[in-house]
Amino acid sequence: MKSTSKPQGRLLYAQSGGVTAVINATAAGVIEAARAKGVAVYAARNGILGALREELIDTGKETKAAIAALRHTPGGAFGSCRYKLKSLEAHRAEYERLIDVFRAHDIRWFLYNGGNDSADTALKISQIGKALGYPIATIGVPKTVDNDLAVTDCCPGFGSVAKYTAVSVAEASLDVESMCESSTKVFVIEVMGRHAGWIAAAAGLAARKAGDPPHVILFPEIAFDEDKFLARVQRTVARVGYCTVVVSEGVKNAAGQFLAEAGTRDAFGHTQLGGAAPVIAQLVKSKLGYKYHWALPDYLQRSARHLASRVDADQAYAVGKAAVEYAQKGMNAVMPVIVRTSDKPYRWKIEPASLEKVANHEKKLPPGYIAKDGYGITAAARRYLGPLIRGEDPPPYGKDGIPDYVRLRNVRVKKKLAKYSIEDK
Amino acid sequence: MKSTSKPQGRLLYAQSGGVTAVINATAAGVIEAARAKGVAVYAARNGILGALREELIDTGKETKAAIAALRHTPGGAFGSCRYKLKSLEAHRAEYERLIDVFRAHDIRWFLYNGGNDSADTALKISQIGKALGYPIATIGVPKTVDNDLAVTDCCPGFGSVAKYTAVSVAEASLDVESMCESSTKVFVIEVMGRHAGWIAAAAGLAARKAGDPPHVILFPEIAFDEDKFLARVQRTVARVGYCTVVVSEGVKNAAGQFLAEAGTRDAFGHTQLGGAAPVIAQLVKSKLGYKYHWALPDYLQRSARHLASRVDADQAYAVGKAAVEYAQKGMNAVMPVIVRTSDKPYRWKIEPASLEKVANHEKKLPPGYIAKDGYGITAAARRYLGPLIRGEDPPPYGKDGIPDYVRLRNVRVKKKLAKYSIEDK
Repeated sequence: MKSTSKPQGRLLYAQSGGVTAVINATAAGVIEAARAKGVAVYAARNGILGALREELIDTGKETKAAIAALRHTPGGAFGSCRYKLKSLEAHRAEYERLIDVFRAHDIRWFLYNGGNDSADTALKISQIGKALGYPIATIGVPKTVDNDLAVTDCCPGFGSVAKYTAVSVAEASLDVESMCESSTKVFVIEVMGRHAGWIAAAAGLAARKAGDPPHVILFPEIAFDEDKFLARVQRTVARVGYCTVVVSEGVKNAAGQFLAEAGTRDAFGHTQLGGAAPVIAQLVKSKLGYKYHWALPDYLQRSARHLASRVDADQAYAVGKAAVEYAQKGMNAVMPVIVRTSDKPYRWKIEPASLEKVANHEKKLPPGYIAKDGYGITAAARRYLGPLIRGEDPPPYGKDGIPDYVRLRNVRVKKKLAKYSIEDK
Repeated sequence: MKSTSKPQGRLLYAQSGGVTAVINATAAGVIEAARAKGVAVYAARNGILGALREELIDTGKETKAAIAALRHTPGGAFGSCRYKLKSLEAHRAEYERLIDVFRAHDIRWFLYNGGNDSADTALKISQIGKALGYPIATIGVPKTVDNDLAVTDCCPGFGSVAKYTAVSVAEASLDVESMCESSTKVFVIEVMGRHAGWIAAAAGLAARKAGDPPHVILFPEIAFDEDKFLARVQRTVARVGYCTVVVSEGVKNAAGQFLAEAGTRDAFGHTQLGGAAPVIAQLVKSKLGYKYHWALPDYLQRSARHLASRVDADQAYAVGKAAVEYAQKGMNAVMPVIVRTSDKPYRWKIEPASLEKVANHEKKLPPGYIAKDGYGITAAARRYLGPLIRGEDPPPYGKDGIPDYVRLRNVRVKKKLAKYSIEDK
């Protein structure tokens, strides 16, 4: 049954962790590159969970047009998951099950598309193949809106959320400015980034010149100082009539508590998560008396494919394509990373990096990117962030005015193994 | 000093109430049409407040390119305000002051661009001119994201917030769907519309076929029924694995209280406004145990010029242009309204309507637009709403990846009158 003209074995691709506006562009890069080489691609349904359960999707059943449309479709087309494999020692059976599934379906290359945890999982899988005597090449493929992966200059997914945030801040600020004399004076927008202020910093790109909004950025890296913040807001309102505040969901007070948790409790007494913006807004109202509005775009920011950064979409596709090339070259335990070769003009290339150098390291926002006063970004931050939001890559729209996002057929591969139950999922 | 080749008198244009993604397109329509006729246009700074204070802007100092760029710039370029003139009887002095300002600057046409209150103000001004012996023609120009103006088929500003909402719901739902097995199962997005569910209804356009998200829309027209809602969410999660809920900020419980106010109080004991989404999300969590996320785009939805509806942007420009034509024809106390002449293909034209028929009436969402179960929209709603979000009209972007929104010079006209203080602003 096996065609002699095709390389032996199949490639398994899986998406992991929080999805982005461009993770499917990476999937398109993987599948198109593999098809060009005559390699069949299976995708795991819901990330590693599908690999463990032998829930596999045959991407060969999708048309060329459908795969091409992944390039402009947000979300994770095969499903993703939040599930971290335990250590090899703690749960060797899980790794053995993966190898069983790989063997049953002649999977020779495993591409795991995710963030820090996924790089760690990919690294572990890359090690067990040899131990269990099954030849599996494992490639990590970078993805995270958090931009916190080590080694790579930036992470696919980040540029688009950065662009969404900067554009939204610019637009909403024009709105607030128009009305500030007799209406809202302080506008607070909360952005993602529980551990690092990359997205908060990107909001600073909305300002083309000094004094432009956002006027205050609250970074998770800087403990919130109420008095200093209020004084800054008051000065800004006195100077320009209004104040746009960007607050990272990860901002903490001096005691190390998240503002979102320290502040608000709901009617049931639960702390209200994802609510740093209302806490800041209420503080401004109670202490300064200004009328406020606040926004919390939440998933809108990471799924806004309609406003993707062209650079980001291109890089997301390129890492997918490179991952297939590395796999075909017989590489193992590597990740295609983005290397910046020039700031001005912005130039980049893809290179392989050892998964060991990526896994379990976190790239923090450099202190040199935060302005001295703690409320803005520096020229160095602009130099780094600026190129990542450049260029537009709008999806095609239907006649109904809604983008034509693709929904794959996702045809399942027939199972060959006994059912497997995942513990404590 | 007066040029004999130009028509006598000037036109005063003012923006009022909440601004939109396309109110400046109306300003462009006004100024370009007036320039074509050789009529000078002043704009009032911050709406009627600027007219009262004699804070006038000479739009003749702006370049042709700057005025053209208004067509793609969100917010209110001359500033807007929330300020309602009192009745003629209660505060005649205020109307007299307006006439004084008009007379001092040879203002013969007054174009007031706003919603319900502004139509009422325009109507009053249209009446006082005659009473005070000053020839002023007053034209109301429609604008409101709330889509609640009478007579006109739709309101400039609404189509773009409708498109933003529908696209955002479609995108975020793809995100949630990808992750629902092991992460968020219920996503709640709160939209504007305190008195009518027009924007909530527009979210329904995200669904191209039955079963598509949004799965539940909570309209302000329907009293919130907790048990029925929770059962619906549970059934939806059982069927498709997740549930997207759109909640209007104006949703009330059976007792007539806004959910946003009935539910959450912050650390200071204040009710938390603009927070129907967290109330719904917490309810789902506490009663059904599902992991949730919620979004509250707030001003982002009405300022998202980057995702404007082409139909909306065109109509916004057209009402501005028509307003100038009506003024030049000597009409008074009218508003250019949008008349739908065909659903399929969608066709519209602009006609004058009496301000008396528009002012102080509110167009409610017809009961026939809400599905029988109270959680979705009908085919009639789709027929009406569908055309309003059609077509894209992206702004030009700079090389930096940010839209090139224009900032006018806003050169002030020299004051001729004594200072005027506005009472109880």
